[in-house]
Amino acid sequence: METSTIRFWFEFASTYSYPAAARLQSMALKGPYTITWTPFLLGPIFAAQGWQDSPFNLFEAKGRYMWRDLERICAHSQLPFRRPSQFPRNGLKAARVATAGLAQPWLPEFVAAVYRANFAEDRDIGRAEVVGEILSDLDLDAAGITESAETPATKDLLRRNTEQAGQHGIFGAPSFSVGEELFWGNDRLEAALRFAGIQTEPS
Amino acid sequence: METSTIRFWFEFASTYSYPAAARLQSMALKGPYTITWTPFLLGPIFAAQGWQDSPFNLFEAKGRYMWRDLERICAHSQLPFRRPSQFPRNGLKAARVATAGLAQPWLPEFVAAVYRANFAEDRDIGRAEVVGEILSDLDLDAAGITESAETPATKDLLRRNTEQAGQHGIFGAPSFSVGEELFWGNDRLEAALRFAGIQTEPS
Repeated sequence: METSTIRFWFEFASTYSYPAAARLQSMALKGPYTITWTPFLLGPIFAAQGWQDSPFNLFEAKGRYMWRDLERICAHSQLPFRRPSQFPRNGLKAARVATAGLAQPWLPEFVAAVYRANFAEDRDIGRAEVVGEILSDLDLDAAGITESAETPATKDLLRRNTEQAGQHGIFGAPSFSVGEELFWGNDRLEAALRFAGIQTEPS
Repeated sequence: METSTIRFWFEFASTYSYPAAARLQSMALKGPYTITWTPFLLGPIFAAQGWQDSPFNLFEAKGRYMWRDLERICAHSQLPFRRPSQFPRNGLKAARVATAGLAQPWLPEFVAAVYRANFAEDRDIGRAEVVGEILSDLDLDAAGITESAETPATKDLLRRNTEQAGQHGIFGAPSFSVGEELFWGNDRLEAALRFAGIQTEPS
């Protein structure tokens, strides 16, 4: 039986990436499969589309809708939600930590905790201290991980993953890729799993 | 038992409105409910966001993704699909006919036929002759309906519905509204029905 692989592309500033990451973690998936968690930065991707800010700030009606839609989705998925007092928050430091943790078992939990901090606890994930607290609260070596997150090798890997996202045709987050096939949005998680041949246990 | 009401906002040039309209028609809905089919024009809505063309043309990566995504959705929903040789096609004439038919039992069938012509048969729905053929093929009085579609009253009603869409916070199509609550996208149809308290028969 072949191993099915999905690549999950996320950015910590991205609102819909929050329920996507949470749902991906809580789903009971069946069969041999790999999920490659890939943090990347939307800034350069949006800049390529001519945007210097989130489209949810640039396009007012769309932004107003998104916040209400996200609130409904979180309620439906039983995820805590509080609209952050600042948007978007800078996901760079957290993305570097996630990049340093690419091969680590703590990665999904760290990702979930950063999204909760941003979209349920209104904490400024752009600040190094907040990212450090999140690591400590997970009983991880905050100092050591932070150091490894700020090495040139980690910074470079995050940069390359962001470039790869653009080359892959990614224009927003969350995205899922299965080989060359691309899926965009929290609402496409199920379609991506289906395409990859990954079955979900009935919940 | 209260009657649940959903307003379905669609534009004939809109790609994702095609599967939305088809799915809304094929679903077996339960209980006392009303679906108000409301054609409107995206042109003025997009212009308010600073766009003189479809965002799928303005933002290349997004457009490339959309065509593949639409193809997958149509396959999954067993709807015929052929990428039109021209996009977007002008939905004005068809929208006026739909507006003239707002209270008519033939409206959903006409809507389905126009979407099929645009997105499965690559016919130019912007041309009066094509809209006339669609009406004739449905055994409707093409001449009489077209005449009523081009009266000042019909044109004005379509204009007012488009204005109302903007006032409602609508920024794209398809949209669904339940009272003040707004849902955007083919993938939000189920959430809109749930919000309205309309149950679907298991298929």
